[in-house]
Amino acid sequence: MTENLNAVLIGKKPTMNYVLACITFFHGGAKEVSIKARGRSISRAIDVAEVVRHRFLPNVRIKNIGIGTDQFQPQDQGEEFQGNNITTNVSTIEITLMR
Amino acid sequence: MTENLNAVLIGKKPTMNYVLACITFFHGGAKEVSIKARGRSISRAIDVAEVVRHRFLPNVRIKNIGIGTDQFQPQDQGEEFQGNNITTNVSTIEITLMR
Repeated sequence: MTENLNAVLIGKKPTMNYVLACITFFHGGAKEVSIKARGRSISRAIDVAEVVRHRFLPNVRIKNIGIGTDQFQPQDQGEEFQGNNITTNVSTIEITLMR
Repeated sequence: MTENLNAVLIGKKPTMNYVLACITFFHGGAKEVSIKARGRSISRAIDVAEVVRHRFLPNVRIKNIGIGTDQFQPQDQGEEFQGNNITTNVSTIEITLMR
């Protein structure tokens, strides 16, 4: 994943917040905007990409879609989980839009 | 979207059910399996693709990931919605795995 790209990290806010963030990047001169999400936010990431392309910026295309898995250990879950080395996997997506 | 492909349509069942469906297709000789999902099931589709690749079939690669929008009119919502032509958009994903 390229680090110097304009990135929009998708969370729990309404879809249009992230759509606006993407549009702001493009209006600021960005050639590429990367939409990143994990877990249940992934479907919202696709909503954002589709709304940006179809409703606001028809000249924006999908350059690439990558999926992957992030592994992390739940360290902040309280003492009853201490000593367990349970690794949790969460799926990720990165949608790169370009114009 | 190619129609003659082996397709696994992701719904609300546990992830491993769909993983097993993919593996069954590949073990039956399929060269490609298409994982399709809409809306909130999209994150599960990515889970399925990641589990198939990383845990069960390491020689399987992602051939393509496509996203899109399905439009439908809520016709089955009862009489109070009759006469409205509200079109609902739902995001879709299609992950094509190949070996």
